Amino acid sequence: MTMMGMKCKKGKKTEKEPPENQRGARTDLAMEERELWHKEAGQTTKLPGVAAQEIRRRGILTTVVRVLNEEGAKELHKPVGTYVTLELEELNRKKLRAFHRVTETLAGEIADMMKLRPENSVLVVGLGNEAVTPDAVGPQSLKSLLVSRHLTTAFPEHYGDIRPVSALAPGVLGTTGLESAEIVRSVVEKTRPDALVVIDALASRSISRLCTTVQLTDTGIVPGSGVGNSRAAFTRESLGLPVYAIGVPTVTDAGALVSTEQNDACADMIVTPRNIDARMKEIASVIAWGLNLALHSNLTREEIAQFVE
Amino acid sequence: MTMMGMKCKKGKKTEKEPPENQRGARTDLAMEERELWHKEAGQTTKLPGVAAQEIRRRGILTTVVRVLNEEGAKELHKPVGTYVTLELEELNRKKLRAFHRVTETLAGEIADMMKLRPENSVLVVGLGNEAVTPDAVGPQSLKSLLVSRHLTTAFPEHYGDIRPVSALAPGVLGTTGLESAEIVRSVVEKTRPDALVVIDALASRSISRLCTTVQLTDTGIVPGSGVGNSRAAFTRESLGLPVYAIGVPTVTDAGALVSTEQNDACADMIVTPRNIDARMKEIASVIAWGLNLALHSNLTREEIAQFVE
Amino acid sequence: MTMMGMKCKKGKKTEKEPPENQRGARTDLAMEERELWHKEAGQTTKLPGVAAQEIRRRGILTTVVRVLNEEGAKELHKPVGTYVTLELEELNRKKLRAFHRVTETLAGEIADMMKLRPENSVLVVGLGNEAVTPDAVGPQSLKSLLVSRHLTTAFPEHYGDIRPVSALAPGVLGTTGLESAEIVRSVVEKTRPDALVVIDALASRSISRLCTTVQLTDTGIVPGSGVGNSRAAFTRESLGLPVYAIGVPTVTDAGALVSTEQNDACADMIVTPRNIDARMKEIASVIAWGLNLALHSNLTREEIAQFVE
Amino acid sequence: MTMMGMKCKKGKKTEKEPPENQRGARTDLAMEERELWHKEAGQTTKLPGVAAQEIRRRGILTTVVRVLNEEGAKELHKPVGTYVTLELEELNRKKLRAFHRVTETLAGEIADMMKLRPENSVLVVGLGNEAVTPDAVGPQSLKSLLVSRHLTTAFPEHYGDIRPVSALAPGVLGTTGLESAEIVRSVVEKTRPDALVVIDALASRSISRLCTTVQLTDTGIVPGSGVGNSRAAFTRESLGLPVYAIGVPTVTDAGALVSTEQNDACADMIVTPRNIDARMKEIASVIAWGLNLALHSNLTREEIAQFVE
Repeated sequence: MTMMGMKCKKGKKTEKEPPENQRGARTDLAMEERELWHKEAGQTTKLPGVAAQEIRRRGILTTVVRVLNEEGAKELHKPVGTYVTLELEELNRKKLRAFHRVTETLAGEIADMMKLRPENSVLVVGLGNEAVTPDAVGPQSLKSLLVSRHLTTAFPEHYGDIRPVSALAPGVLGTTGLESAEIVRSVVEKTRPDALVVIDALASRSISRLCTTVQLTDTGIVPGSGVGNSRAAFTRESLGLPVYAIGVPTVTDAGALVSTEQNDACADMIVTPRNIDARMKEIASVIAWGLNLALHSNLTREEIAQFVE
Repeated sequence: MTMMGMKCKKGKKTEKEPPENQRGARTDLAMEERELWHKEAGQTTKLPGVAAQEIRRRGILTTVVRVLNEEGAKELHKPVGTYVTLELEELNRKKLRAFHRVTETLAGEIADMMKLRPENSVLVVGLGNEAVTPDAVGPQSLKSLLVSRHLTTAFPEHYGDIRPVSALAPGVLGTTGLESAEIVRSVVEKTRPDALVVIDALASRSISRLCTTVQLTDTGIVPGSGVGNSRAAFTRESLGLPVYAIGVPTVTDAGALVSTEQNDACADMIVTPRNIDARMKEIASVIAWGLNLALHSNLTREEIAQFVE
Repeated sequence: MTMMGMKCKKGKKTEKEPPENQRGARTDLAMEERELWHKEAGQTTKLPGVAAQEIRRRGILTTVVRVLNEEGAKELHKPVGTYVTLELEELNRKKLRAFHRVTETLAGEIADMMKLRPENSVLVVGLGNEAVTPDAVGPQSLKSLLVSRHLTTAFPEHYGDIRPVSALAPGVLGTTGLESAEIVRSVVEKTRPDALVVIDALASRSISRLCTTVQLTDTGIVPGSGVGNSRAAFTRESLGLPVYAIGVPTVTDAGALVSTEQNDACADMIVTPRNIDARMKEIASVIAWGLNLALHSNLTREEIAQFVE
Repeated sequence: MTMMGMKCKKGKKTEKEPPENQRGARTDLAMEERELWHKEAGQTTKLPGVAAQEIRRRGILTTVVRVLNEEGAKELHKPVGTYVTLELEELNRKKLRAFHRVTETLAGEIADMMKLRPENSVLVVGLGNEAVTPDAVGPQSLKSLLVSRHLTTAFPEHYGDIRPVSALAPGVLGTTGLESAEIVRSVVEKTRPDALVVIDALASRSISRLCTTVQLTDTGIVPGSGVGNSRAAFTRESLGLPVYAIGVPTVTDAGALVSTEQNDACADMIVTPRNIDARMKEIASVIAWGLNLALHSNLTREEIAQFVE
């Protein structure tokens, strides 16, 4: 569970920052930071250094927030870059057609953002602790990912047309004793992928977005506790290659919902959907297939299915 | 997830019932109903028809609330009977000695309440949905239970000294299409145990009690939605044998923590410990061993371990 | 794990019974008993009282063996009835189209055999131990089954067109202390379904059939150990309603493969596919969808998907 | 699943190598290679370059095989080094005292072999595929391992006395696209542990040893397919630090048990205990605690338990 591009989280307040009690819960979603400013102003204000756009594609509400410069970064508490958010209410209905539409829309956004050449290799990293349900979206997503690097290396005559994709679930500091970013950096240096995709669980301010929203960004991830800790960051700057992040809000800190006096009791408590186990499998499958379709645009859905457990 | 002895939940308010906003979240714990009245009065009031006592046994805070008559039942919103609550903060520390002390204390309370004769047979029912982590405490507990009925029946010469214990996880209405109580009643009629123990997840008002508290009662269980629905009840009255219930609070309804306007968004959201998966395994193991030691007091811990996976 | 219709297993040998070393491993598949006789004679003999037919439907090899009378039952060591076996090699290829074709073919066979009227209710029982992978196909199949009895009962105005289907995973004697058949009989008596479907793991003589074959029969199931034990049987005779069985061979007893001197060491050892975990999920999903499509022929695949986790 | 120190597996036959049909199934256990020679000679022969010894410690049969030189390596088809095998029949009985005795005996052997100084750091690697039960012993063992490197680094004042231990489950080539050894080597280079322990599932020739035997060696591991493939090896030579391996035989290739004509059908089939799921958890727990007690000899069992989930 990390903070997406949340570099200035604990920095000193800027003049325009809303008071704590208004800001409410921590969020990793750029669109939520933006919503706040909208509401505050009571109208569709324009933030300096920020461009935003809402589009409905194949019935899916897609919000693109662009943080254009340092001024925008300061306003939105997010680093310069592009943040695309897809709201997937359809997902709950379990229709095969909905699954196809959702994954194709996500694949389209991923492909647009990554702009890969056919020969580029990709490492996909699933962050988080698989034993803690709401933190498992990263490792869980890898289970349906088409992994091909070993095939393209060993049998170039058969798999030469397939993009080399590898996958890594580095675990979490508490159970490995190793910083995830340390592991990833050493594997990147050894295996030299052309791009990195990091999948992680996020925190959201809005309860209605839990497990229904996917955020895609080209800024990478800086874990929440990692202010000024470049060892823990997953960014182009720290790792030396383009880093994309796919995140799903799965929890809201319970402390954020309640009044100050109750807050102590809420430490280590989370708010989460009652059926979180089923929801996580569902959203992990959407992310995996979004990636499969985006990274292997020359394969059909059925061809991909032959490789995936 | 059911309401423990919560018969009058949606009935008309009695004169003394506190206003909604004071009552806060729904609770299945008798001790929490009592706490409320204490706080309200600002002193240790005596409730008519209710006797309560706090004892520390082997370092474990044990609260015994006795609802003595209908007047008490009205005051406490719980049926006449005994409610024993153990607060197991020690549990988190994972010490073997703590595990032994906690399970022996729980076993003592179970044995005291059930007052079984050596030849009495017992059916243990694990209610809840195993696929939904915070609702899985019932089925999970059965996994470490010493089940012996088949052995005592088939090999009386070897296992004649062991109490016949059987176990049943009836699932939930949404995944079986069958009322749990219907299944249990038909199995009770067919196999004729002398007593029934029902294990279930509870709702608690206090976040600090989630996964650390066990409530034991001789009133059985009436599922929350089951007002006036005797088909769904697990009670001596509806099933025709003594029914004991062991419950663990695993969730607080998120709606209970927040102000009215946020409440809609909180539907189907729960507050739960971040490490709920690990906590459930732990508490399920405590319940199973509390039962094992209580029901098989003629076996040592090591002899029991030979039977348990 | 039970013996499908294996009543005469330990009975005295008939004249025509092949010698032990030729018979090889125990099998629950009627088609394997028949194959044996073919091979022995070295030609396509006709067994008295047995009619057999091989058809290829939608590319799936389907064998129908009919045991017509007691003479045939004696020859084939299987009770009188119909045994349909589908060989699903396609399954391994993980194509969506293959999944559709396989499940539709299976649904067709189920519907043909059960000949239900629209208003008939069905109870589906998943036998076996969910904690033992090769024995879990029954409980696992229930996870994707459309269960509707509670909806049709509570909301007849909305769900009146849907067939009432309920599901039960009674566990195994070793972990419940209760005979599965006892539990099922008591639930049948209480809830009165019009037909019963029992799903179970089988033993096969042929290693190549493990996890790729489905046998469907109208004879019910008599557990292997249950010779003369009508309390353990799942048959129309013992339960009082039509009983259909769906079985998948998941193991071969290791003892069957080896010479006599090694046989002791092989006790409690099984031969199973290396990737048994993945294969079980796959075949369980095929069975569930075969049943969903057969039992709810008035719903589309997508409508069914809305109900299924 | 790898071959322990099996460098010469596919090399040309030496004069003394027994004929294929006598050698039987592949084995990763040095003691099984030795047994073979014993039986062949019909007496306790001495193999040149091999020293062997059987001791019963705390009731546990412990075999130490030392391959002293290249001559011995050729005779035994295992590299020069020490192989300690513990036969843990006791384990099955699930007695707490047996668990203590077994884990202390294993811890003693580990400590004797590794001869660590208090300040030495250790990386423990769990090889294998967690989703394939008999291959999951490595990742599974990590779940109960006391991991401390992050604590000793961040809070030296509190945890300065604890040995820094880290853990890594690199997955398998088929699901990551990355050689496990590649990942491990890059993490070793980045984090510089003083010693490496690799846990893996093994193949055994003897069915009775499945899941009951632990082999400990100071030779590291060379995966079976990795003849001459130093990229895949886990050895001091390839990784530049002392490498110890802990292995448990969990499967026998089914092909090894049967006659030649059946052999094709047995491809990808394994022989395994019926209750493999439960057995794997048990043996993984033994390995984890053997390591915990060996690596943290200054902590009590109860202190260790505080850190372990």
